[in-house]
Amino acid sequence: MILINGESKHQIDINDRGLQYGDGLFETICILKGKPLFFAEHFKRLIEGCERLNIPQPSWSDLNDDIARLVVDAADKAIVKIILTRGAGGRGYRYSPQTSPTRIISLHTFPDYPENYATDGVRVTVCQHKLSINPYFAGIKHLNRLEQVMARNEWSDEDDLQEGLMMDQTGRVVEGTMTNLFFAKDGRVYTPMINRCGVKGIIRGEVIKMAKELAIDVTEREFDLTQLADADEVFLTNSVIGIWPVAKLDNWRYNIGSVTRKFQQYYLTRCHND
Amino acid sequence: MILINGESKHQIDINDRGLQYGDGLFETICILKGKPLFFAEHFKRLIEGCERLNIPQPSWSDLNDDIARLVVDAADKAIVKIILTRGAGGRGYRYSPQTSPTRIISLHTFPDYPENYATDGVRVTVCQHKLSINPYFAGIKHLNRLEQVMARNEWSDEDDLQEGLMMDQTGRVVEGTMTNLFFAKDGRVYTPMINRCGVKGIIRGEVIKMAKELAIDVTEREFDLTQLADADEVFLTNSVIGIWPVAKLDNWRYNIGSVTRKFQQYYLTRCHND
Repeated sequence: MILINGESKHQIDINDRGLQYGDGLFETICILKGKPLFFAEHFKRLIEGCERLNIPQPSWSDLNDDIARLVVDAADKAIVKIILTRGAGGRGYRYSPQTSPTRIISLHTFPDYPENYATDGVRVTVCQHKLSINPYFAGIKHLNRLEQVMARNEWSDEDDLQEGLMMDQTGRVVEGTMTNLFFAKDGRVYTPMINRCGVKGIIRGEVIKMAKELAIDVTEREFDLTQLADADEVFLTNSVIGIWPVAKLDNWRYNIGSVTRKFQQYYLTRCHND
Repeated sequence: MILINGESKHQIDINDRGLQYGDGLFETICILKGKPLFFAEHFKRLIEGCERLNIPQPSWSDLNDDIARLVVDAADKAIVKIILTRGAGGRGYRYSPQTSPTRIISLHTFPDYPENYATDGVRVTVCQHKLSINPYFAGIKHLNRLEQVMARNEWSDEDDLQEGLMMDQTGRVVEGTMTNLFFAKDGRVYTPMINRCGVKGIIRGEVIKMAKELAIDVTEREFDLTQLADADEVFLTNSVIGIWPVAKLDNWRYNIGSVTRKFQQYYLTRCHND
């Protein structure tokens, strides 16, 4: 089932600015036994996106009610995707203050990732497609995702690769096509700053919070591939996969060490307590 | 009327990747007495976009037939917009080779721009929002247009401004939110290179061709606002407006000189002969 502004529908008007210009935002939320995980954090990022794009904010209760209606039919693990567009209207790029947003909530099957991705780690390649730099849009999850689409299609399902790493136009490491990236070196943990491009992932934020509780030092900083070559452990995060260790980045191999395992364990506890 | 893959409809599936990711292309074509202007050039850019994004190419005859059906009801001057998305399907950013594109053709009223924009020139402001640099997407007209949306909404209809000029992240002048830009200095004409960002507008291409026929030297080059401060004449182009002289760019005023007038005259002749 799909709810569009609270009504069961599966189509939108072609004049919707989400289609015309990618003028909107989205969130992908993991559902565990009927409960949306880290909903408060997803809602917060969505609101931040609305502020950035000047889109009227959706209400917590509307989103919550929609999700509650959808998850009635959901399996123990499922995915809910929220798309919030500016709505239909305006003339060309100009939007009208009267434009009313379109709220699209859809339920999806949880992807059938093999369990050993989380235990034995995944294989990652460095993508040729780069992220363009625009600090104004950094952090939020907007609908302009052609860079990710092109990067994700640099490898096919036959390639035993689970993710691609994206750099910005100047060669800084930023994130995976659908994940955020962390690495550990000498017991400290590092993750790219998301201030020029990239998405501030919800699980990225949770890892940073968990690190404080676990008394592990996490630094957001700039780095390029040479620092990754030298890393002890590398791992990826997003709301669907949770935390995946990286076993291999092109020809570099990594151990799946105690830092990654600590975060994975703590993350599972958090999911069940959220 | 709107035709979606040749059928009269006004809605698309929410799974369409045009909505999900801005995964597609568009063209805006001027219709003059039932005839799409510069259709061959629009088609060529659309095909180039398909090659760049790896979207199966639409057929000339499908597009032509759709447009012919729509313009039966059209006024002497009208607009046709083509949106070509990758279609519905794939898993996340990954598209499937089986995905079949969605072709959306819609007819629109010609905008009621006052006639004196073309005769007396328009007022333009420099936008705060910048274009991000990604050479892979430069030139084509894809659906990731949040930068233009944000830039266009820096001024409102009450501001007596008709266009906003966008620079890239490094301060090079690139284009207007919906137009390309030219300036004349000492009888020579200059326009920004579209190799890092921006759209290669159809009328931009026509101006470059016309200049050869008129024996006017046109150079595509990099420049910033200081060169524009020093320009003799400035003008803007797109498929709907044709050629608009710029009378004012924030506090700088320009004459509407003989170079702009030559292009405007020649352009009108070309439109009627296309």
